[in-house]
Amino acid sequence: MLLNSPAVEQLIEAFRRLPGVGKRSAERMAMHILSAPAQDAQLFSEAIQLARGRVIHCGQCRNLAEENPCRICTDQKRNHKLVCVVEQPTGAIAIEKGGSYKGTYHVLYGVLNPLDGIGPNELHFDHFFQRIQNDEVTEIIVATNATAEGEATAMYISRHFADSEVAVTRIAHGVPMGGGLEFTDNVTLSHALDGRTKIG
Amino acid sequence: MLLNSPAVEQLIEAFRRLPGVGKRSAERMAMHILSAPAQDAQLFSEAIQLARGRVIHCGQCRNLAEENPCRICTDQKRNHKLVCVVEQPTGAIAIEKGGSYKGTYHVLYGVLNPLDGIGPNELHFDHFFQRIQNDEVTEIIVATNATAEGEATAMYISRHFADSEVAVTRIAHGVPMGGGLEFTDNVTLSHALDGRTKIG
Repeated sequence: MLLNSPAVEQLIEAFRRLPGVGKRSAERMAMHILSAPAQDAQLFSEAIQLARGRVIHCGQCRNLAEENPCRICTDQKRNHKLVCVVEQPTGAIAIEKGGSYKGTYHVLYGVLNPLDGIGPNELHFDHFFQRIQNDEVTEIIVATNATAEGEATAMYISRHFADSEVAVTRIAHGVPMGGGLEFTDNVTLSHALDGRTKIG
Repeated sequence: MLLNSPAVEQLIEAFRRLPGVGKRSAERMAMHILSAPAQDAQLFSEAIQLARGRVIHCGQCRNLAEENPCRICTDQKRNHKLVCVVEQPTGAIAIEKGGSYKGTYHVLYGVLNPLDGIGPNELHFDHFFQRIQNDEVTEIIVATNATAEGEATAMYISRHFADSEVAVTRIAHGVPMGGGLEFTDNVTLSHALDGRTKIG
């Protein structure tokens, strides 16, 4: 509570609403904005408005984009028969960072969660299934999170394509590269054992 | 790297420049702004500009304020003969939260650090000493951080008033309330022992 200035309190409050930001972090961020050169604060404010103004959802993959269809959906070097399903745009960012994936994406913006009232309609599965058909996709890699809801969503997609030519696969869960067994939690370890592959 | 949108990358970059924000946190924050209602993003952007536009430094205590002199400096219920010196406005916020301090503040915006070229002039000590004289201050509580530079700054202020009527004191450093000895670091423990007070 900086009793001196309601404007500063409003700014701290704005930062607090961001995910993972507590009261003290919000205060530090606000102080940073107030002590940074005026131009930096201006650029920050503009970056928010610019992003909100420009960013749309790609009509094909629903990922965040500035064009419709997005750059990935129109990239002819990519394999359009291979679609990776992620919960959020951050999932696609993580996979893009890896640099080895050359297929396209589909962003669900959530996972099936009947208790929260999120069913197939809320995630626009009609649109997704239509897209798979139109693009003659051969493989769907489901990269939803390893939660009960993520698994249920993967299962739902897999069942829909059970009698079709489309292969539905799930990304492997297991021990992270360079991670020792002793630092791995039980659920991950159990997944790593179930997902064992032959060597040699 | 969201290859899809330069505007999103700019927004992530803007969040990354905030203190304590790594790449992943910045991505999550940007996604939050992009998926929040447009009005929330607008309000956030405006909060930054509003704060930058309104907030000034109080001419007396140099704290962030919207009026000059600030609300604390003009508050007649406060003891203007007692001044607490802090490194940053966040220090004053922390003490104000405590609610028990009834004096005024003085914000240095840094501490003496000859290696970084921060001497008495950079911290505007002339202005500070003048203020102490004008307001006929009787006690200065130095609440700079318990770092070598913070201690040196406290020492500098103490020496300046060595031959005057002004008492210069230092806030106590010691074991936090409710904190066990076994969780306290050595330096804090040594301060706690040096600063022991008589009981009973």
